[in-house]
Amino acid sequence: MKAVVFNKNNELKFVEDYAKPVPQKGEALVRVLVAGICNTDYEITKGYMGYDGVLGHEVVGIVEDVNGEDKSLIGKRVVPEISYGCKDPNCSWCGQKLYRHCPERHTLGIWKKDGCMAEYFTMPTEVLFEVPENVSTNQAAFTEPLAAACEITEQLHIKPMDKVVILGDGKLGLITALTLNAMNYDVLLVGKHQNKLDIAKNQGVKIQLLQEFKIEKTYDVVIEATGTAGGFETAMMLTKPRGTLVLKSTVATGKELNLAPIVIDEITVLGSRCGQFPPALRLLASEKVDFTPMISGIYPAEKSIEAFERNKEKNTLKILIEFSK
Amino acid sequence: MKAVVFNKNNELKFVEDYAKPVPQKGEALVRVLVAGICNTDYEITKGYMGYDGVLGHEVVGIVEDVNGEDKSLIGKRVVPEISYGCKDPNCSWCGQKLYRHCPERHTLGIWKKDGCMAEYFTMPTEVLFEVPENVSTNQAAFTEPLAAACEITEQLHIKPMDKVVILGDGKLGLITALTLNAMNYDVLLVGKHQNKLDIAKNQGVKIQLLQEFKIEKTYDVVIEATGTAGGFETAMMLTKPRGTLVLKSTVATGKELNLAPIVIDEITVLGSRCGQFPPALRLLASEKVDFTPMISGIYPAEKSIEAFERNKEKNTLKILIEFSK
Repeated sequence: MKAVVFNKNNELKFVEDYAKPVPQKGEALVRVLVAGICNTDYEITKGYMGYDGVLGHEVVGIVEDVNGEDKSLIGKRVVPEISYGCKDPNCSWCGQKLYRHCPERHTLGIWKKDGCMAEYFTMPTEVLFEVPENVSTNQAAFTEPLAAACEITEQLHIKPMDKVVILGDGKLGLITALTLNAMNYDVLLVGKHQNKLDIAKNQGVKIQLLQEFKIEKTYDVVIEATGTAGGFETAMMLTKPRGTLVLKSTVATGKELNLAPIVIDEITVLGSRCGQFPPALRLLASEKVDFTPMISGIYPAEKSIEAFERNKEKNTLKILIEFSK
Repeated sequence: MKAVVFNKNNELKFVEDYAKPVPQKGEALVRVLVAGICNTDYEITKGYMGYDGVLGHEVVGIVEDVNGEDKSLIGKRVVPEISYGCKDPNCSWCGQKLYRHCPERHTLGIWKKDGCMAEYFTMPTEVLFEVPENVSTNQAAFTEPLAAACEITEQLHIKPMDKVVILGDGKLGLITALTLNAMNYDVLLVGKHQNKLDIAKNQGVKIQLLQEFKIEKTYDVVIEATGTAGGFETAMMLTKPRGTLVLKSTVATGKELNLAPIVIDEITVLGSRCGQFPPALRLLASEKVDFTPMISGIYPAEKSIEAFERNKEKNTLKILIEFSK
């Protein structure tokens, strides 16, 4: 089958002869409609996680087969949560459906499990979720990053009067701003690019250009979505004493950091990763958010390498790759 | 009066002719019995906070006068919380007695207020606390760092079954370990120095030498008390997914830090500073902790500079300076 592979020689390749996966007991075989490129995919091509195999973890597909008794998912349009765990009934992580923290976890296209940038992938049925009928396939491709934004509200009690600022108008910042705004939080998105900020503004998010933004310690919640050491430092300067700085990006800082403000202002830095899908699908079904203005390009599978090149360009937001119709 | 001063030329001096302070409205004049050297004092002598004036914020003294109607503190042996705020009834920080976060705060020997390494200091009466009779003056000199250890339990709900590890067997780590152990938490202290660890062991704290300690992500709460970038990195490796890393030290890292583990394991990094005194004094009064084995030396005021030199030596723990009897 066609697949986008990052191989053991650290080469990103589009291949046509990758072995079609066989669903193991409890797994479904999913035919891919569309997959999204995430910055994590790009990080992996620079060596992050030491991963090799089929890339990709943002995807919408149709279940073609299930290896198991319950065949009810066959024919359904689904999105997969990206990790599954050991399934040991004594595993405290799996018991809470926090598969991403199970020490024996597998993560789609990131860790010990071939990803979704291919004609087919397999995942256990318990991490597959049906896409509501009124949600387009292109919108549904945003379920995974949307769930990651919802995860903030899983970890942190943001109160109705809290002032929330999001730093960074890339994919992560935009999706987080649109999501929290749709949930009625008091959100301000700060970034460097008027055209990107306008996507949020058009859906009612308060925005401000970084160059016009006053840096002061007045925010209860600061969400760092620039993925840079400078962004982290700015975030510390915006967080009110005893406030919370949410760290969403896994990029290494590559810079000396002075963590003293965390102690002096008794800040909580909260690492936040991916999330569970039901709240994300509920939000998509409600049609309170529209991510499609963030799509910068849709490429056929054969042009996947070109799609990855395009993803690196400064003004690009989400790039989708189509594997079937 | 005699005083230990860090002057505008960045010189640490012992002087005999410093002006005796005059208590302002609402302040008490306190005659100093004994003052402790904290690592923050040493940091200040390297330029931290840009402070100049009388050093010191750990102290026990006798109230000699009060500028105000209520004279009941006169003659009492007291310890001062180190910050006072604007006293504006609308200040949310002062309303919660979180003076240390008031933007208009003054902090003894650290920020806009002469410190306590002198024959006298002044502080508002609302931040002075009487030392219980059964607590020796030398023990009471530990009230401030002890309150800083109690602050962790003010900010964080440590549960009875939580595994807590404290990294670092310096003053901060030892005081934190002794304090949390006295409060019945499940505490392990890890450090490099058998002689320092033994001080904790003798009071029932579980200890382990770092060189024999297995690094694994199994701790619910990790308290970083080494003040080094390496310690912070080890702390990240010890924190269970979704666990809490308490950051107690304000030392700049001076090293590139990879913060990705915070995101991947969804760790909470909690900055923690000084604390309120009543719980600290309650613990001292209960005689469940004994900090006196941590006293490495007691110097007369005239030998203050020598005391600071001694404080820098590797095997030194707490150094006290006596200003009067």
